[in-house]
Order: sequence, then C-alpha cells, then structure tokens
Amino acid sequence: MPSADLIITAPHMYTMAGKGLGYLADQAMAVTDGKIRDLGPAGDIENRFTPKRKINAPHHLLLPGFIDAHMHMVDALMRGLAQDTRNWMMHGIGPFQMGMDETGDLLGVKLAVAEGIAAGTTCFGEFSDYNPEIMAFLDRSGVRSPVTIRIREAEEKIYGPGELYEFNPEKGSRSLSACLDAFDRWHGRGDGRISVFFGPQGPDFVSRDMLRKVQRLAKERHTRIHMHVQQGDRETEQTMKRYGKRPIAFLDELGVLDKDLLAVHLTDAREDEAALVAARGASMILCSGSIGIIDGIVPPARAFLEAGGTVALGSDQAPGNNSHNMFNEMKLTALFNKIRYEDPEVMPAWQVLKMATIDGARALGLDNRIGSLEPGKQADFIVVDLTRPSMAPVITAPMRNLVPNLVYSARGHEVSLVCVNGNILYENGEYTTFDLPQILGASERYASDLGIRGAERFRDINGCNADMMRKGLL
Amino acid sequence: MPSADLIITAPHMYTMAGKGLGYLADQAMAVTDGKIRDLGPAGDIENRFTPKRKINAPHHLLLPGFIDAHMHMVDALMRGLAQDTRNWMMHGIGPFQMGMDETGDLLGVKLAVAEGIAAGTTCFGEFSDYNPEIMAFLDRSGVRSPVTIRIREAEEKIYGPGELYEFNPEKGSRSLSACLDAFDRWHGRGDGRISVFFGPQGPDFVSRDMLRKVQRLAKERHTRIHMHVQQGDRETEQTMKRYGKRPIAFLDELGVLDKDLLAVHLTDAREDEAALVAARGASMILCSGSIGIIDGIVPPARAFLEAGGTVALGSDQAPGNNSHNMFNEMKLTALFNKIRYEDPEVMPAWQVLKMATIDGARALGLDNRIGSLEPGKQADFIVVDLTRPSMAPVITAPMRNLVPNLVYSARGHEVSLVCVNGNILYENGEYTTFDLPQILGASERYASDLGIRGAERFRDINGCNADMMRKGLL
Repeated sequence: MPSADLIITAPHMYTMAGKGLGYLADQAMAVTDGKIRDLGPAGDIENRFTPKRKINAPHHLLLPGFIDAHMHMVDALMRGLAQDTRNWMMHGIGPFQMGMDETGDLLGVKLAVAEGIAAGTTCFGEFSDYNPEIMAFLDRSGVRSPVTIRIREAEEKIYGPGELYEFNPEKGSRSLSACLDAFDRWHGRGDGRISVFFGPQGPDFVSRDMLRKVQRLAKERHTRIHMHVQQGDRETEQTMKRYGKRPIAFLDELGVLDKDLLAVHLTDAREDEAALVAARGASMILCSGSIGIIDGIVPPARAFLEAGGTVALGSDQAPGNNSHNMFNEMKLTALFNKIRYEDPEVMPAWQVLKMATIDGARALGLDNRIGSLEPGKQADFIVVDLTRPSMAPVITAPMRNLVPNLVYSARGHEVSLVCVNGNILYENGEYTTFDLPQILGASERYASDLGIRGAERFRDINGCNADMMRKGLL
Repeated sequence: MPSADLIITAPHMYTMAGKGLGYLADQAMAVTDGKIRDLGPAGDIENRFTPKRKINAPHHLLLPGFIDAHMHMVDALMRGLAQDTRNWMMHGIGPFQMGMDETGDLLGVKLAVAEGIAAGTTCFGEFSDYNPEIMAFLDRSGVRSPVTIRIREAEEKIYGPGELYEFNPEKGSRSLSACLDAFDRWHGRGDGRISVFFGPQGPDFVSRDMLRKVQRLAKERHTRIHMHVQQGDRETEQTMKRYGKRPIAFLDELGVLDKDLLAVHLTDAREDEAALVAARGASMILCSGSIGIIDGIVPPARAFLEAGGTVALGSDQAPGNNSHNMFNEMKLTALFNKIRYEDPEVMPAWQVLKMATIDGARALGLDNRIGSLEPGKQADFIVVDLTRPSMAPVITAPMRNLVPNLVYSARGHEVSLVCVNGNILYENGEYTTFDLPQILGASERYASDLGIRGAERFRDINGCNADMMRKGLL
C-alpha cells in the first residue's frame, strides 16, 4: 500500500474546484511530497494509503488556504499610525515612513506573516523593494509568496500641486536591475513557493519606455506584471498632463493591459474603464479594507466581474487597513459592494470566498498549483474549527450555513491548522517555523525607536493624528 | 489597610472618562463589592489596598466592557441562514423562524452570550419576547443585560402590498402584560445587572393608543422605551397610510421622541429626520453590520451625532450580520460612514470606541453605573492582549496606535479577560459561569431539527439561498 505523508479527515470540505464551491462531506485528503495525492470518502482514502501522520478534524471545515494577493508587509510596524485622515501619504504614514530601514521592513514582514498565517493566509503577495533577507525569511517560514519587486523612476520628493513627477532613469534602471536580480536568484525557489513578479509602481511613477522594457522582460521570463493602476486622482492628473490620457487609456495604448497584468486598486477607475481592463484579460486586485480607510471609496470590482474579469483580494498595508486578515477582506468586500449598489444581493458570500482562493490563484497565474483542493495541486490548505461560537451552529440541510458563516461571522481565530506545500506551519495556536515572541519583542523595540525618529516630523506636519493626540482622542 | 476583592495592573488603560478617552499609563484599579473602588498609579493602589486577588496584565490594555445595545440573541441558532437576499424577511429568515420555539430561543441567547463575552461584550441589550428562562440565564451567567420585552399588536401574517397591518388589541395587551410582568419580576435583579425596558416593536406594529399607554407606563417606572424606528420603507408606507405621516413625524406628534427613547436603526430616515430625533433627546442605536447585510444601507448616524445626539452600537441578529462582536460593529461603523460620505475623516476610531462604551451606556441610561472606569462605577471591564500580532507593535509616542488598532485591526480574540460587576466571566479562553461544549452540543442538535422543520417552506419559498444551494454555491 503506498504511503502518504499525511491523511486528514474532516466532515466538511470546500475544494473550490469546478463551477460551484466543490462541497464534499466526510472526506479525507492524502498528501504526499507537498502535493494532494487524492481526495475521497474517508474510508476509501484510509484503505488506500499508509499515512505517516493522520489528522482527524471531527468538528472542522477544510478548505484551500487564503491568497492575499497584494500586501506591503514591510509597512507592518507602522500599524495604526495612519488612518482617519484625508491625507494618508503626508499626514498619516509620512512622518514615520522616512524612519523605516531594511531591519524594520524585515520585522514588518515577519509580523505580517504571523498575523496572516493565524487567520488562514497561505499565500502572501508582497510588493516592495528587493531585500534578500525578506526573501530568505519567506522561504524559511514555509509560506507561499509571489513577491513583486518595486520598479520606480520618479524621484521621492514632495511635488507641488500639478507638478509632473521627475523621472530619474538611473533610479529606474537600478530598481529594474534589482528586480531582475531577485528574479534570477529567487523565482521558483522553495519548491516553487517563492516566485518573483515585476512591479512598476504605477503608470505615473515610471516612464513609458520603462513600462515597455518591463513588459518585454517579464514576457521573456513568463512572469507577471503587478502594478498599482488608477489608484488616485493624482495618478490621473500625471498621465493626463504627460500623455493626454487617463491611466487606463494610456496603458491600453501601450498594450500593457493583458493577461499577464495584475492591476491593483482601480480606486478612481470608472466602471467602463474597469470593464476595459477586464476585457483585455488583466486581473484586478481589490483591497477593500485599505481603500475604505484611506479613501472612503469602493472600487468598481462588480463592473470588473461583470465584464468577465478575475478579481483577487489584498490586505495592502497595516498602516491603513489595519490588518492582514482575509476574513476581514472577504466580509468588507461583500458589504461595501452591497452598500455601493444599495443591493444586498451584490457580492454574495460564495463570490468573495472564490476571490480569496481560486480566483486569487487565477489572478496570480498560480491556479495550476493552488487555489483549490484537487489531486496534483500543492497541499496548501487550512482547517477551521466549527466549535467556536462564531461558526455555530452548523446547519447542512435544507441549506448549508458554512460559507455565510465563514465570510460574515468568522474572525480568523477559528483557523486551527495551516498547511503549505504539505508542511504544517500553524497548529492550535502554535507556529512551527518561527518564534513569535522573539518577533514581537524586536518589533516593539524597533517601533518605539521609529516613533522617536518620526516625532519631529509628526509635530511639524501637525496632521489629524497630532490633533487627536492633543485632544486625548488616541 | 482596607481590602479589595481584586487589584488589576496594566501598562495601558482607557477609562473613557472625561472629554477624551481618558488614557492612563501604568495604572492599577482596585475593585470591591462589584465596584471600582479606586484607580491610580500602580504603586499607590498596591500600597493602599490588600487584595484578595491580584492580576498583573503586563502586556495588556484595560478598558470598559463593550455595550451591545440592540440584539436579538434569540435568533442566534439561525446564524448564516439569511443573507445575500433582497427579501430578508420572506426569503431569508422566513422559512426557519416559524420553526423556532422557546427552547431554541434560550439556546440562541446562550450561544450569543458566549460569542459576545469572548469578544469583550459585557452588556447585552436583548430585544425579544418575555421568556423567564432567558432572564434566569442572563442573571446566572453574570452578564449585564438590559432586556427589552417586545410589545406588538399587529397580527403575524403575510400582508399584501400596501395592506394595512391588522391590529389585535388582545395580542397587544397580552404582550404589554408580559412586559409589565417581566419588569416587576426582573428589573434591578442580579445586583442591578438585569433591567427591563419596554419594547413596542415599531410605530407600524402597535396602535397609537398602545404607544401612548406604553409611554405612560414606562415613565411611571422610570425605564426606557426601546423601539425600531424608520427601519424600512414598509414602515413608512404603513404610517403614511394610517396617519398621513412618516414614522418620525408621527412619533414626534405623539411626544414619544424624548430622552427615554432608544430609537433603533433609522435605516430609511432622512438626515433631517435623524437630526430631529436627536434634537428631541432620544438616542440612536446603530446596527451597521446587520443593516449593511440586510439592506445595503448606511443609516444617518453622522447627522444624528451632528445634531448633538448620542449613538450606541448594536449587533442585531446572527441571521443577517452574522456575528455578535463589537469589534466588528466598530470597524464597520467607521468604514461604512467613510464610504457613505467618501471622506476618510468621518467617524474616526475614537468616536466608534465611545459608541461601544460610554455613549452606549448613556443611550441606555446606565452611564451612572457603567461605560467608563471611574471610582464608584460597577467593575465592568475587559483586558486586551497586546502580544497578539493584530495589536502589535504598540507605539505610544509621538502618537498612540492603541485605539486605531483596537478599532481597525483587533478581531475579538485579543480579549483575554472579561469582568462584570467585579466577577470574572472569561479568562484566557475559559468561561467561568457556563459550559460552552454543552451549549454547542445542544445548539447543533436543535439547529439540525430546525433545518428539517423548515425544509418544505425553504423549497416552497425558493429564494436566493435555495438557488445558491442548487448551484453548489453554499
């Protein structure tokens, strides 16, 4: 009888395979060499494989791990420093961001990975500058991580209203080189868990030539471009002034809107613009929580879906969201869209659950490997404890309440086990690949210094948060 | 040296007293006979009292327990059966509600209390029919609970479009008698933890005479009226047809809009109507999650606040929300209002934290006893573990990130201790006053039967959820 590294049995499973959600009752899954070997009735699977480890999850729900497609985990140590302000960039994150360095970036990634894993995220779509230590941590921690390396040509300085960003070709080619270097060193590492995408920061932050070059280089390497698109009116102003076109029209003319593009945010895109991006085959990453806090806007994901596009979800960053938790993103996405259209039938639970799993995988071009539980795919899955009050009671007939409760009631702590590539990363509150207290201790020390370093700028800028501190409202 | 039942020490405390949030560092609180005896620097308090028990919470935040001002906990066993539908009443909860009885109601209350306590709720504002067993459980479980007894005259039947609800005076006087009986037996019980409010279901569900009578009886007893107000366009249609007035104008004419009224929802109220209710001195209970799911609407709480009104938060019911978790209500309230007004400065973190604590207490008329941590008030408080990744890192200068993280990042499981009237009800994941596994087991069995009892109606009604079941989307 062939052996399996793991057999796990649960009364409820959502495979996310096929047209629906692939619900199965009383099934087992056999895992070998990091992959799903087979799924089937518990008795059958147990008769066919000799497991090295057997997990019986008798009051649990098994489903694919969540895919958080767009994150700036490097910013996690600034959690809670930037919200409730109309000027997120200057008054919110501004005073502190200049005090961050690579040590803080790495600690932020560690903290965000800890937070995400505990809430069922198995795939972390980081977007930041190339930092080999971050890549090494992501590899070592056992998570799946398509990392996008930021490419930027615009100088980082304060621009006057209406002033065109100043492109520095040297800066651009330096960041592109780092991206290529990251790709060569890391793409496909960790048994394929780590991949590298190309990340022009936005159509306003790189030149037309750079965009063309990035597109050619990414296509040669069969990897994706992951870019902020139409993320605000300042972007529109820049492309209008520089090219006489709104960002999406400009990108369309360039031929960048294709199946290899991950377009993040579309905050200020009109519905017809969103539909155009979808029609060209690009995917959208929707960051409901972050755009809700930072802009008070619900991006046009519904129009994107209606035009046949694929939508993934992203938690963006802790300063402005303020959490890396896909349960949060699912619920907010469903509710924000019901509110945008004043229609409770918009964005039902199943649709946002797909975004957090199989559609996320599709957007990232990883759906041949993850996003659903099917033989041959990687064993990236999570187990949800149905004996937590928020998931109770379980009803299966005449309708199942499991998915509504997963999306609208679960908070994240119901996740009792997290597995990536067949390796258990989290079980009953314990992490297996890193030391959380050590990460927390180092984060506290760093963040305390970060506050001190930012104090003068915080006072000088004197934004909303400074005002709230004075009034005792923080 | 006087003794104290408990001294608790924490590095961070929000008393919610005074104009701001009453932040204090490195303080202790002494509790005696269910009340806060004193607060002060940890060393001082420890030198002045001999404690029976001493709790050191070294990486924690202490604050008043949350007040969930409007709940139908009796419906908790129907969690996840009613959402993503335009017809919540008929297509959502309809097929199942008729199968509920007093046993299911009581189990629902138990489950919801377990859920709420674990997420820091200490005060449970139940609104349902009088059921002595529910009152006894609320007393025994140690929570604080202002219970509103439903008074209804309209017959429970299916009305045609535009048809006026049929009032049955006998039904009305029966429910009023039950309310009076509940008041006589339970108001003030459990060392004052249990109180009884009068609950006309809405201006459309009781007659004008009944409203006048309820008002007189409530005033004689110095208790509050807690009523659904302007909760939907059907209500408006009813009062327009019956009295020629919209609900709020009708209630104003009757003189019901005064400081003793808790007006729940105001879903379809215009901003000027909300402002009128506030100007008359009534309080508003805002149920962001439930109204978001059921109606896709953000009620006019901002206008209510701007008119000087007090707004409390409520989680409403599990079928349609789908959780009893005040962290959920705080975050949704802040974000929904930012979206409604497309302004990230609307409803900052401090404002929704006040709604969940001291403003909730004010709305319920309990602010002389709870809602803030001050000497002489009841010892209703919670402790939040700041070593959970979602609350990390802690930054205190130049701004504190604690409140933004409590509102925008915490999920509920960060609560490590819950105390009501000086009695610890929950500590490190364990309940002290009831047996959760027993409640869960009984809930599962009941809910399974409930599904069977509702199956035929579910098929006949054939709503959205039936369609999603057929398509494998649940």
